Amino acid sequence: MPHSTTAPTLGVGMVGYAFMGAAHSQGWRTVARAFDLPLTPVMAAVCGRDPEAVAAAAGRLGWAAAETDWRALIAREDVQLVDICTPGDSHAEIAIAALEAGKHVLCEKPLANNEAEAQAMVEAARAARDRGQVAMVGFNYRRVPALAHARRLIAEGRLGSLRHLRATYLQDWGTDPAGPLVWRMRKEKAGSGALGDLGAHVVDLAQYLTGEPITGVSAQVETFIRRRPLPGDPERTGEVTVDDAALFTGRLASGALASFEVSRLAAGRKNALTIEVNGAEGSLSFDLERLNELEFHDHTLPAAEAGFRRILVTEPDHPYLEGWWPPGHGLGYEHTFTHQARDLVRAIAEGGRPAPGFAEGLQVQRVLAAVEESARNDSVFTPVPLPARDEQGE
Amino acid sequence: MPHSTTAPTLGVGMVGYAFMGAAHSQGWRTVARAFDLPLTPVMAAVCGRDPEAVAAAAGRLGWAAAETDWRALIAREDVQLVDICTPGDSHAEIAIAALEAGKHVLCEKPLANNEAEAQAMVEAARAARDRGQVAMVGFNYRRVPALAHARRLIAEGRLGSLRHLRATYLQDWGTDPAGPLVWRMRKEKAGSGALGDLGAHVVDLAQYLTGEPITGVSAQVETFIRRRPLPGDPERTGEVTVDDAALFTGRLASGALASFEVSRLAAGRKNALTIEVNGAEGSLSFDLERLNELEFHDHTLPAAEAGFRRILVTEPDHPYLEGWWPPGHGLGYEHTFTHQARDLVRAIAEGGRPAPGFAEGLQVQRVLAAVEESARNDSVFTPVPLPARDEQGE
Amino acid sequence: MPHSTTAPTLGVGMVGYAFMGAAHSQGWRTVARAFDLPLTPVMAAVCGRDPEAVAAAAGRLGWAAAETDWRALIAREDVQLVDICTPGDSHAEIAIAALEAGKHVLCEKPLANNEAEAQAMVEAARAARDRGQVAMVGFNYRRVPALAHARRLIAEGRLGSLRHLRATYLQDWGTDPAGPLVWRMRKEKAGSGALGDLGAHVVDLAQYLTGEPITGVSAQVETFIRRRPLPGDPERTGEVTVDDAALFTGRLASGALASFEVSRLAAGRKNALTIEVNGAEGSLSFDLERLNELEFHDHTLPAAEAGFRRILVTEPDHPYLEGWWPPGHGLGYEHTFTHQARDLVRAIAEGGRPAPGFAEGLQVQRVLAAVEESARNDSVFTPVPLPARDEQGE
Amino acid sequence: MPHSTTAPTLGVGMVGYAFMGAAHSQGWRTVARAFDLPLTPVMAAVCGRDPEAVAAAAGRLGWAAAETDWRALIAREDVQLVDICTPGDSHAEIAIAALEAGKHVLCEKPLANNEAEAQAMVEAARAARDRGQVAMVGFNYRRVPALAHARRLIAEGRLGSLRHLRATYLQDWGTDPAGPLVWRMRKEKAGSGALGDLGAHVVDLAQYLTGEPITGVSAQVETFIRRRPLPGDPERTGEVTVDDAALFTGRLASGALASFEVSRLAAGRKNALTIEVNGAEGSLSFDLERLNELEFHDHTLPAAEAGFRRILVTEPDHPYLEGWWPPGHGLGYEHTFTHQARDLVRAIAEGGRPAPGFAEGLQVQRVLAAVEESARNDSVFTPVPLPARDEQGE
Repeated sequence: MPHSTTAPTLGVGMVGYAFMGAAHSQGWRTVARAFDLPLTPVMAAVCGRDPEAVAAAAGRLGWAAAETDWRALIAREDVQLVDICTPGDSHAEIAIAALEAGKHVLCEKPLANNEAEAQAMVEAARAARDRGQVAMVGFNYRRVPALAHARRLIAEGRLGSLRHLRATYLQDWGTDPAGPLVWRMRKEKAGSGALGDLGAHVVDLAQYLTGEPITGVSAQVETFIRRRPLPGDPERTGEVTVDDAALFTGRLASGALASFEVSRLAAGRKNALTIEVNGAEGSLSFDLERLNELEFHDHTLPAAEAGFRRILVTEPDHPYLEGWWPPGHGLGYEHTFTHQARDLVRAIAEGGRPAPGFAEGLQVQRVLAAVEESARNDSVFTPVPLPARDEQGE
Repeated sequence: MPHSTTAPTLGVGMVGYAFMGAAHSQGWRTVARAFDLPLTPVMAAVCGRDPEAVAAAAGRLGWAAAETDWRALIAREDVQLVDICTPGDSHAEIAIAALEAGKHVLCEKPLANNEAEAQAMVEAARAARDRGQVAMVGFNYRRVPALAHARRLIAEGRLGSLRHLRATYLQDWGTDPAGPLVWRMRKEKAGSGALGDLGAHVVDLAQYLTGEPITGVSAQVETFIRRRPLPGDPERTGEVTVDDAALFTGRLASGALASFEVSRLAAGRKNALTIEVNGAEGSLSFDLERLNELEFHDHTLPAAEAGFRRILVTEPDHPYLEGWWPPGHGLGYEHTFTHQARDLVRAIAEGGRPAPGFAEGLQVQRVLAAVEESARNDSVFTPVPLPARDEQGE
Repeated sequence: MPHSTTAPTLGVGMVGYAFMGAAHSQGWRTVARAFDLPLTPVMAAVCGRDPEAVAAAAGRLGWAAAETDWRALIAREDVQLVDICTPGDSHAEIAIAALEAGKHVLCEKPLANNEAEAQAMVEAARAARDRGQVAMVGFNYRRVPALAHARRLIAEGRLGSLRHLRATYLQDWGTDPAGPLVWRMRKEKAGSGALGDLGAHVVDLAQYLTGEPITGVSAQVETFIRRRPLPGDPERTGEVTVDDAALFTGRLASGALASFEVSRLAAGRKNALTIEVNGAEGSLSFDLERLNELEFHDHTLPAAEAGFRRILVTEPDHPYLEGWWPPGHGLGYEHTFTHQARDLVRAIAEGGRPAPGFAEGLQVQRVLAAVEESARNDSVFTPVPLPARDEQGE
Repeated sequence: MPHSTTAPTLGVGMVGYAFMGAAHSQGWRTVARAFDLPLTPVMAAVCGRDPEAVAAAAGRLGWAAAETDWRALIAREDVQLVDICTPGDSHAEIAIAALEAGKHVLCEKPLANNEAEAQAMVEAARAARDRGQVAMVGFNYRRVPALAHARRLIAEGRLGSLRHLRATYLQDWGTDPAGPLVWRMRKEKAGSGALGDLGAHVVDLAQYLTGEPITGVSAQVETFIRRRPLPGDPERTGEVTVDDAALFTGRLASGALASFEVSRLAAGRKNALTIEVNGAEGSLSFDLERLNELEFHDHTLPAAEAGFRRILVTEPDHPYLEGWWPPGHGLGYEHTFTHQARDLVRAIAEGGRPAPGFAEGLQVQRVLAAVEESARNDSVFTPVPLPARDEQGE
C-alpha cells in the first residue's frame, strides 16, 4: 500500500541481488513509509542469471517478479527505473541499454571499470536527459545525514578557506591470507580492488563535501597478498589481480592539500571511512563507524572554550531526519539507501537532475585512473582532467 | 511477498500509530526480509480513534486496513496478534480483551500504569498460555545486539562475581520550560514521567543483563518544571503531574550495588541510556548513543595490556547480525523492533514463551512502585516483592 | 636557587613521605620554577618515625633535613609551614599542635577521621587565623585546570539553573581478594575506606564546582571482601574494617539532584573520577583519566549544531596554564600539587584565606558522616548540618 | 640534595632557555627524584646571549650560573654534559665544539638544518665515542610511556607482519594570518617549517616503533600564508620562508605503506601527533593529545570479542612508570624530558650508546631532505639513502 494512495507509481527493476541488491531493496521497501513522495516506488522485478536463486531472492527481498535476462527486465512495461547492483564490469552495457530503452537508471558505484566505459555512459545519460530521463550513481554515503550536514556547513562558509582534507576508508576482511579469492579481488570483474571499492567513495565524498574537484594525485598501490585459495576449491590458489591498498595525496582546486588511504588489510578497522576537513575558521571530522556523529570545531570561538564538538546528527532539522525518530535515536548503514531512493524518486517526479549524475561518476573514475597512472610512474604527481563544460552540466 | 512463499502467515493488528506505532510498523515491514521465519507476518490492520488520521496512517505505514475501535480490531479474523502501542493507561484493558479473544499480544512498556493492572494482565497471560497463546512486553532494547551480546558474556561468567551496576537514561527534551504539556507529562495517561518512560527500560535491562532481580531500592524523584503551556493553547499552562527525573540506588539478588538515574532535563544527553557492570573478572560498558559498540574489559589479562576494548557488535556471530550487513556497517534504533518481531514470531510458531513475558513486565512495575514508595518515605530502602513461583513460570 | 633571588623564603616541613609525601614534594620542588611567587618555598625538613627510612626519603625527595618526631619538626625555626601527609588518624593532633606553635598548615584530605576531630581543627584554625596563620586542606583536584575552568563556567552562569550532578570515583586495586590488608583498609588508621579516600574528593568537588552545599544524602555502603591476607604474613588473614564501596544520592542547596558512587572494586577503572553537571543552559563533563579535557555542551546554541565539545584545557588563559607549555601539551596528576602549592604560598604572602579552609574540610566530613548514618539507617535521607556563619567565614 | 648522597655528580650546561630550555630544565630538576640514578645531575650553568635575560632564566629555572658565550659554557670545568636547546642553525657548531672539548652532548631535534651539517655531527660523535663520550638527539616522544610500550609490543611480534603506518602531527597555531613571523617561520633559523619541527618527530617515531628505516618518499609541501606581520613591527610584513604543511607517503623496509601529514594550520588540532600501525595480527593507535593511552587491537582474538582496547599506560610494569604514581594517575608532556634525562644519565654512567644517537638523527634528516626533493620534483618517489654500516654502528 502506498504512502499516499493517490500518488502515481514508479516501477523499479533491479539487476543483481547480492549485498548491494539487499541494501537497495531495503531502500525501496522503506522509502515511501518514511518520506512523503510524489511517486510511490513499486518493487516490480529483480534480475539474476540463476533462475532458482533469483526466484528465492525475489521472495526474500520482496520483489513481485524475477527475471533471468537483464534485457528482459529492461523491456518490462512495469519497470520505469533500472537499478544496477551488479559488479562493475557490466555497468556500462546495462546502463546504456536501459537509457536507450527510455528507462531511468540508478547505477552502483564505481560507475564503470574504466574511463572509456564511463565516458560512454555519460554520453548515453546526456542523450537520455534530453528525453526527460534521469541517471544517477549510487554514492550512497552522500546520504549519511552527518555528511550531508557537513557539506551544508562547508557550503555556508563555516570552515572558511580550506587547507586540508584527509580521508581513509579502512577495512580488514582481507587481512587473513587464507581468505578466498572472491570476485572483488579479480580485475576483470571489479576493475580494481580497495581503490575502486573504497577509494571511489572517499574521492566522491572529498569532492562532494568541499564542492571542489581533485586536480591531481600522487599515489602508491600495493597488493600484499598475491595468491589466495580459490572459492570452492581451497586446495588450489589463484592470483589476486587487484590492489589490497592504495595511498594517495592530492590537491583540491582551491589548493587545499588532500590525503587518502584505503585498505582491506587494516586489522581492527571494520568500516572506517574517516574524513576530516580543516579550514581557516573551523574543522569537521567524521567516522562511518559512528555514523550518527559529526565532530565540528568552530575556530571563531575563544580558544579557551573551543574544541571539537560531537553533534548527534539526529535532530529534526538535520538532513533526512524529518522521516525518522526523535533526537538521539540513531540510524544505520542501510538508511543511506532509503535516502538515496527518496532523492532519486523526487528528481524523477520533478524532472530534476539528481546528484551525483554520471558525469560526477566519470570524474571519480578519472581520479582513480590518475591514481593508477601515478602509481605506475613512481608516484609522480598526475593531473586529473577536469570536466568539460557540458559534462559539468550533466 | 513473503520471505518464503510457503510459510503460513501471521496477521498483525496494531493499536496506536504514533512514535511507537511507526517503530513497530518498521519492524513488521522488514522482519521477514532480514530473517528466515516460520510464519510470515501480514500487516492486517491498524487502529486509532480518528477515522481520517488512522486511514492516513494505514496508508503511510503500510497497514492493509484501518479500524477506529480496538474491540473491532481484536475481533478481526485476519488478526492473530494484537500489538499494543498506546499510552499505558489503556494497556490492561486492551491486552486482557485480546488475550481473552484468543489472540497473541505484544504490549509496549511499561506493562501498565500501576501494579494492580499489571497483575491482572499477568493472570490473563497465564490463562492464555494454557490455551497456547503468547504474551510479550516490548522492552525493545533487549534486542540491541550489543546488549544481547553483553548478556551472553555475563551469562558465560566472563565478568565473574558482580559488584556494581550503574545505569542512566538521560534525555533533554524537557529542558526548555516553554515545551508543551504533552501526554507523557500527565499522570492519568502516562502513569509516571521519566520513571516509567525511561526508568522501566533501565530496570528491565539491569535484570536482563545480570539475570538477577532487584531486591530493593532507595529513591528520590523530582519535578523541576511544575507548570507548562497547554498544547494548542500556549497562553495557558497546566500542571505537570509526573516526575522529570528519578534517582535511585538498589541491590541485585547477589548483593551487587546498583545505581539508576533517569531524566528528561539532562541538557545535551539526547538518548543516553548508559549501563556499566563491574565484576571480579571483567566489566562491560554501553551507551545507546553509540549502539553498535560494546566496551569490554577483561580483568584476567595482564594489567599492562588490559583495558576497555571497543567491540563493534556487527560481526556475523553477534546476536541478530546474521540478518544484516558486513562487519562495521552499523544498525540503528529501529532494528530493535525488527529483532523483537523476529523473536516473537518464532516463539508463536514454536509454542515458546518469549521473554520478556508479562510477569517480567510486572516485576519491573514492582521496582518502579518501590521507587515511588521510597521517594515518598524519605528515600528509605524499600524492598521489592520477588515474583511468586508461578509468576516466574510465566 | 629561588625563582627570584630577591624573594623571601618560606620554610616547609613535611610529615609523612609515602605516596602523598612524594606528590607534595614534587609540588614544592617545581612550584617556584613554573610560577612567579612572592615567597620562595624551601624544603627544610621531612619527618617520619623510622630514622633510616626518613633519611633516605629526604635524600630521594630533596628535603634538606630529616626528623623522627613531628613535634621536633614543628619546633624547627626554619619551618614556617607544616605539610601533613600522614594517614587521617594523626591529622588533628599534628595540625592543632602546629597551629598552636604559630605555623601555617597544609593538611591532606580527609581533614580528620571523625567529625569531632575535624571540629577541633576548625577551631584551632580560626584562632590561628586571628594571628595571621593560614590553614588549608589538600583537596588537590580542585587544582586540575579543567575542573577550575569548570567552576569558572558554572560561576559565570553558563549552565543556568542546575538540575543534576553525578559523580563517580572508581578504582580497581581492591578487586583481587588476594590483595593485602593495607592501612587504607583499617578503620582505626583510615577512618573509612573508599568513602573517605575517594568520596571525600567527589563530595568536595561537587560543592566546589557548584558553589552549593550538599544538604542531605541517602546511602548504601558495602564491604565485598571481608578478610584479606596480612601484609608480610600472607598465610594469615585479617578483617577489613572499612567499606569497599559507597553509593549515595543527595541534594544540593538549589534543589539539584546529585548522585555519587565510589569503589575500589570497579574492574578496569583505574582512577575514574568522573563528574557531570547538567543545567538549564548547558552541561559539563569531566573524567580524571583524561584530565586535560573538559566536555562542555552549550544548550543555547541551535540544536542542529550543539553537542558536547572537548575543550583541551591547555590554553594560556585557562587556570594555571600560564606556568606551563604550549596548547595541547598536557599536564599530569602531579601538577595539581604544584598548583596547590602556588595558591597556598600566595595566600600566605598576601594574608589571604586559601580555599579550601578547614571549615570546608569539616563540611565534607559532615557529608561523609551523614552517608554513614544513612547507610546504618536503611538509607533514609539524612540531612547534613550546614555550616554556622563563623565556620563559613573560615 | 642528590637522590643518593653517595652518587657522583654529572654537571649539565644548557644552551638556550626558551620553550625547549624550560622543558629540559624540568627534566634535569626532577629526574633524580623519580628514578635511581648512578650519577646525580647538577644544573651547573645555562647560556644565552642577553646577560640580563639569561640571569633571570637561571634564577627562574634553577641553574647555578649563567653564561653569555656558549664557548665559555663548554669550557667550564663543572660541565660534563652540554644540552643544546637552540634553534637548528647553531646545532652543528655547538655540538661539534662540545664533543671536541670532551663533553657529552644532548642535542634537540632536528639534528641540524641540513644534511651536510648533520653528517659532520655524526662524524664528530663517532670520534668522540672512541673517547668514551656520548651523543644523543632529543627525540623526546620516544619516551612517552605509551609509545615505548608500543615499540615493545611490535618488537615482540604482537602485530605480525606490518602493512600500514599512518602518522600525523597537526597543530593550529599558524591558522591565523595575523600571527607574527616568528623564527620558526624563517628558513635560515629553522631550516624548514612544519616539516622539520613536526615531521622530524613522526619520521623518527615511525622508524623507532617499527624498527625499520623509511626507504623512500613521495611528497607535497605547502606554504598557505606567505607573508606575516613582523614581530615587534606589526605594520610591516615579512616573507614566510618555510612550509606550513607537508604531506608525504613512503615505504618501510619491509614494504609496509606509510603516510605522514604535518601542519601548523589544522584548526582545532593542538598537538595531534597521531600514529597507527596495522599488522597481520594486530594494530596500535596513539594520540599525543591523550598521551597516557594506547589503543591495541589484538587480531588473534575471536572477531566477536576483538576491538581496539584503551590501555591506560600507567601500570607499574609499563616503561618509565616505576618512578611515578599509582595506576590511572597520568603523566604529562614534560615527563618525556625526565625520562630522556634518565636514559641519558644511565648511558653516560654505563658507557653505553643511548638511542637515538646522531646517526639516527642524520637518518631522519635524510628522510626530510628526500621529502623536500620529492616535493620539488612533482612528488616523484625519492629513495632515501640508507645508513652506511658504520653509521648504523653509531
